[in-house]
Amino acid sequence: MFRVSIAAFVAAACVCSSALAGDLKTASDLRDKALGDTTAWNILESLTTEIGARPIGSPAYDRAREWGLAKLSALGFSNVRIESFPKPTWHRGVESAEVIAPFPQKLAIIGLGNSLPTSKNGIEAEIVVLKSYGELLAAPEGTFKGKIVVVNQRMVRTEDGSGYGAAVRARYGDSEAAKRGAVAYLVRSVSTSQSRAPHTGTADGAGPHIPVAALGVPDADLLEHMAVRGPVRIRLHLASSIDTKAVLWNISGEIKGSEKPDEVIVIGGHLDSWDPGTGAIDDGAGVAITMAAAHLIDQLPKHPRRTIRVVLFGSEENGGSNVAYLEAHKGELSNIVLASEADLGSDRAFKLELPDGVVRTPEFAGLPTLLAPLKIFVASTAPGHAGSDIESLQAAGVPVFSFHQDASRYFDYHHSADDTLAIVDPAQLNQNVAAWASTLYLLADSAIDFRVKPIP
Amino acid sequence: MFRVSIAAFVAAACVCSSALAGDLKTASDLRDKALGDTTAWNILESLTTEIGARPIGSPAYDRAREWGLAKLSALGFSNVRIESFPKPTWHRGVESAEVIAPFPQKLAIIGLGNSLPTSKNGIEAEIVVLKSYGELLAAPEGTFKGKIVVVNQRMVRTEDGSGYGAAVRARYGDSEAAKRGAVAYLVRSVSTSQSRAPHTGTADGAGPHIPVAALGVPDADLLEHMAVRGPVRIRLHLASSIDTKAVLWNISGEIKGSEKPDEVIVIGGHLDSWDPGTGAIDDGAGVAITMAAAHLIDQLPKHPRRTIRVVLFGSEENGGSNVAYLEAHKGELSNIVLASEADLGSDRAFKLELPDGVVRTPEFAGLPTLLAPLKIFVASTAPGHAGSDIESLQAAGVPVFSFHQDASRYFDYHHSADDTLAIVDPAQLNQNVAAWASTLYLLADSAIDFRVKPIP
Repeated sequence: MFRVSIAAFVAAACVCSSALAGDLKTASDLRDKALGDTTAWNILESLTTEIGARPIGSPAYDRAREWGLAKLSALGFSNVRIESFPKPTWHRGVESAEVIAPFPQKLAIIGLGNSLPTSKNGIEAEIVVLKSYGELLAAPEGTFKGKIVVVNQRMVRTEDGSGYGAAVRARYGDSEAAKRGAVAYLVRSVSTSQSRAPHTGTADGAGPHIPVAALGVPDADLLEHMAVRGPVRIRLHLASSIDTKAVLWNISGEIKGSEKPDEVIVIGGHLDSWDPGTGAIDDGAGVAITMAAAHLIDQLPKHPRRTIRVVLFGSEENGGSNVAYLEAHKGELSNIVLASEADLGSDRAFKLELPDGVVRTPEFAGLPTLLAPLKIFVASTAPGHAGSDIESLQAAGVPVFSFHQDASRYFDYHHSADDTLAIVDPAQLNQNVAAWASTLYLLADSAIDFRVKPIP
Repeated sequence: MFRVSIAAFVAAACVCSSALAGDLKTASDLRDKALGDTTAWNILESLTTEIGARPIGSPAYDRAREWGLAKLSALGFSNVRIESFPKPTWHRGVESAEVIAPFPQKLAIIGLGNSLPTSKNGIEAEIVVLKSYGELLAAPEGTFKGKIVVVNQRMVRTEDGSGYGAAVRARYGDSEAAKRGAVAYLVRSVSTSQSRAPHTGTADGAGPHIPVAALGVPDADLLEHMAVRGPVRIRLHLASSIDTKAVLWNISGEIKGSEKPDEVIVIGGHLDSWDPGTGAIDDGAGVAITMAAAHLIDQLPKHPRRTIRVVLFGSEENGGSNVAYLEAHKGELSNIVLASEADLGSDRAFKLELPDGVVRTPEFAGLPTLLAPLKIFVASTAPGHAGSDIESLQAAGVPVFSFHQDASRYFDYHHSADDTLAIVDPAQLNQNVAAWASTLYLLADSAIDFRVKPIP
């Protein structure tokens, strides 16, 4: 139903846009075609069905690489390639936790990436429940000697996903707990849902390290309720191992530019995922949106001037892709004229940010009209952080653009078993493809040199 | 916030109800007190925190019995008693399922109550995916010889929960699959959620029996997507055992009637629960609502004429409570003047049904006004099925009344790990207590003999 009503609205809007310049006409045709196109859905359905979860270093990760190379080739991308890099990888083992006393209950937990394992017999200790991460930081060293520290800090739901930044700090708290004497650290899942499925992620404390896991949201509340009544003892088992010889990768394919093939716009998503779900929104969606957008542009009678390169980054969740990508492309850095990443799920985009000044050029004066039927506004601000996998490029001076997506639901599912194709809305997925395809076409075909600052 | 605005609305409504008859005044005072009372929440918080999941025959089930007896006594109920009955009980063991080929992926499953176990090595077989239960019933015997049958029939979300009846038939389909040659049966969780948490329940086929489990909703979709591509093989492990010597129970306490103590109104919820969650909405909420409502009535200066008996039924999920209760109370059956059960979660009530004719009596003419501030209407229809635990009483001729609750969310959580205190809205829980306390008071104090048909 959503798709039907958007299509009708776009059809009406196209009457007014018939007076647009030639390239805006191509862009609006791309936008309209994308809304009814099934490429992105098919990519995402294929990835989640045929591969599923694909944590780095797993057999499924190897299959994902082959899937990515085959899919890029099948869609007609040129210069399909793989760039490998070494990185020690963490592998989850069997995990469990339970309240021993006074109220025996099983707990839903999931170990955080890079957590230390417990001993085979597990850790059995009394818990201390803190309602915020600030309470942990405020405690003197040694305060929690021999205890398992539990931080039950709530995450706030926001459209732009900004509640995540505040909440995720607690997930990096294992070292702070260790400094204060804790023998293990349990953190409320960084989630806006009330599902019992725990949400994983990395534990990135600087050290010292202790075993660390996320509790299901109701389980964190449960421990808080129990602790009000008196001492609570829990038993925690976390098994894991490190493969020091793992080889990871980034893979990519191109839509070659018609006039300036050496000037490259790097876009993409990440193909690795966490293990409990099937990685549909994190980040199968970003892979699907950017591949589909580039594929639609590839089908035009004439390619835009510059080359569009879609990179399927191979290690976002545990980091590594972005540094490896910069290292491998230092030689062509001055030719990477723009970069962007889609990594905030499959729900609709509501805002576009372009490099400072671009929005005020005559060439891009038609852009707000182009994106208005998609209910996306073009911001006058330049992007901040535009994606984990391109942050090294960005730091090295590559200009970036950024679509902001509605993240209201994203953190209900992200990094949990609930990240599956079942939660993807095909109409919203295609709204993203329409926005990317039309905007990307204009950027790739633009006469503006985005590397010049300020834009004239 | 919801609580505040209801309270304000009720305060306004009370101006008009000051002209009501004496007992309606008491009823409206009960209603208003209940909205700000914490008894129901405290009961539910205590049960989920101190006991948690309490499947029949488990150690937690024994603790739940002691919890129930202690809680009834602490709240001042009289004649607190336990009535035991034998029933073989099914115990879940370790369970797992995975796609072996062509796309190896783990599957989220949960065995259904009374399922046969697989052999220790599990069952490995090709699947057949059917989109509806009707497709299974339409197939001739032997159609699925050696296969694992998967039924992926969707459940429809409705306010009154009526989508459940149509969907749950598929959960009882193991015998129909067995008759057609299947070696195991997997059914899409009977759920309106898209969470990966699978929903259990009983498998009640008449036989022959085969191993049977529910798939997470996304997992059922996943198998359907895979099967489109060609043959899919899965491996299924289900361990379970039967305890033939288990002793189950119903427990109860009373608010003794002031004038007709031998005439009894039986109300309650069920204290047993399924095992993946903490049984907050199924049926800790029913236990909490009915105990709290009776407790509020107990605190009146004078008890209503008839006795109110709160029964915490001990085996609803696997059946047995209702028959055992009738058996134990055959001798006083003619004195059970009314019965009702709360077993549809913690969300707001929207409709009340009373025995045929009661709503048209002058004595109950004020009831719609009493319940209007709670946004509950009094239906002119008599109740149908009024609760699993009282269906034997109902079949034996005991008149029943029934509050219908908003079940829009109920089947997102029911029988799954997501049935926890985190999903309970205290304001809606109390709206139920207010409705029960005020209505129950009027029924217990009424001069009408509900056993006479038709009501004069």
